[in-house]
Amino acid sequence: MAIEKAKKYGMGMVAVRNSCHYGIAGYYASQAAKQGCIGITGTNARPSVAPTFGVEGMFGTNPLTVGIPTDEEFDFVIDCATSITQNGKIEYYERIGEDIHPGTVIDIDGNAVEGDSGVALKKIRQGTAALTTLGGIGEDLGGYKGYGYAMVIELLSSILQDGWYGKDLDGKDENGNIRPYHLGHFFIAIDTNHFLGEELARKKAGDILRAVRASKKQPGHDRIYTAGEKEWEVYKQRLVDGVPITGPVQKEFMAVRDQFNLDYKFPWED
Amino acid sequence: MAIEKAKKYGMGMVAVRNSCHYGIAGYYASQAAKQGCIGITGTNARPSVAPTFGVEGMFGTNPLTVGIPTDEEFDFVIDCATSITQNGKIEYYERIGEDIHPGTVIDIDGNAVEGDSGVALKKIRQGTAALTTLGGIGEDLGGYKGYGYAMVIELLSSILQDGWYGKDLDGKDENGNIRPYHLGHFFIAIDTNHFLGEELARKKAGDILRAVRASKKQPGHDRIYTAGEKEWEVYKQRLVDGVPITGPVQKEFMAVRDQFNLDYKFPWED
Repeated sequence: MAIEKAKKYGMGMVAVRNSCHYGIAGYYASQAAKQGCIGITGTNARPSVAPTFGVEGMFGTNPLTVGIPTDEEFDFVIDCATSITQNGKIEYYERIGEDIHPGTVIDIDGNAVEGDSGVALKKIRQGTAALTTLGGIGEDLGGYKGYGYAMVIELLSSILQDGWYGKDLDGKDENGNIRPYHLGHFFIAIDTNHFLGEELARKKAGDILRAVRASKKQPGHDRIYTAGEKEWEVYKQRLVDGVPITGPVQKEFMAVRDQFNLDYKFPWED
Repeated sequence: MAIEKAKKYGMGMVAVRNSCHYGIAGYYASQAAKQGCIGITGTNARPSVAPTFGVEGMFGTNPLTVGIPTDEEFDFVIDCATSITQNGKIEYYERIGEDIHPGTVIDIDGNAVEGDSGVALKKIRQGTAALTTLGGIGEDLGGYKGYGYAMVIELLSSILQDGWYGKDLDGKDENGNIRPYHLGHFFIAIDTNHFLGEELARKKAGDILRAVRASKKQPGHDRIYTAGEKEWEVYKQRLVDGVPITGPVQKEFMAVRDQFNLDYKFPWED
């Protein structure tokens, strides 16, 4: 709807209320970019992130996501949480046995949580630790900037549609029973054809990204990526090799087969 | 112009080309917020910031600035560079004798610059060091996020108006002579009255900010601030006490007085 409005009037914005899981932020931004629009989108989320000088999860990982059309095979799409990390990534660290990155989680006493990722995750779920904002704990490395951007998303996701926010988004009622999340999202589209045209915008965006990629590398790194590039390469690879199925999921697949006595061999059993 | 468009159509955007210094980003965002609009603005700038896995200053400190109306005495305004720090702040550290914050500057060999802020500043000016993006060097603490947001500002500041970008914005021609910067800016305004109304938006924004400020504090900190709050308090203080004049500026003022043999005593001479 935002893209339709943008195509007609130059730009469009839509606020969404009483929603549940938003899915992949980058998907919406990509839709805009594919159609020659700049797409800006965000959502509020379950409270898990602490403000600068705070220790309590007061807002979500609130992604600030932007898609911009380019003349390359893939558009520019930055899709990321305004916190340094998010619960799903810590779950992943737990699975692969990687410790928590110091500075990404703060405990109720104001200390950076270190060590076992599984322990950190339990603390976050119990409310005795919270994620930190991009820039980290305190002000020295700009933690207030990530906090500011998180609040922009928190505000834009609810003030335009009289939506729920903060602590109320924990998915539980006062008795601890599960209830709908009532999340809010927003979507902005800006049509490059209402400025100097899609072709020029795409060309210049591509030129800028190529110049940055071609710049001098940090020793030990042979590439500089632009947002959307790694995802594009994975996408192309998956088209050839398929989507990898990890160990626990393989086991579930095999259990279903055995339950129904199906005569089928999975590729990983070769 | 963006605010006028927003008042009429719901939202408006303006791209600026061939500009010079943009001034205070927050001033533009505040104008929007005062009039019940959400204001989003940014500018490109002299190249001084390196991309993730890069060591060369390829884009500017590119502020991503947002103003949002509230029901308090001051609106929410986050006005900050997408790099962790900026040259002006390092100049300030040099003056007060504070060392560079490790991780905020990367040298040409890919190492974090440490120690004397004046030395770091010289390296940046000589092109043997560059500022890092919010989240710091590498990917561990989300440096690619600050880099992504910096690129959003770089792209929005030039692709809509066929503007200059990156290395060309260094203010010098091929012979090293000073030339105009040709900077680009953009301004977006979104009118809350085209959604559920300014009063509701202001009230809900205030409620969200007050809830965050009232949350549990990190030990050693008795306040949680929201963006624009510290600036508002300084503004109120300055209305009472005036604007402080620092030592070097005091000396310049006194030198002018003496040059013209004026019979005047400055307040700091009491």
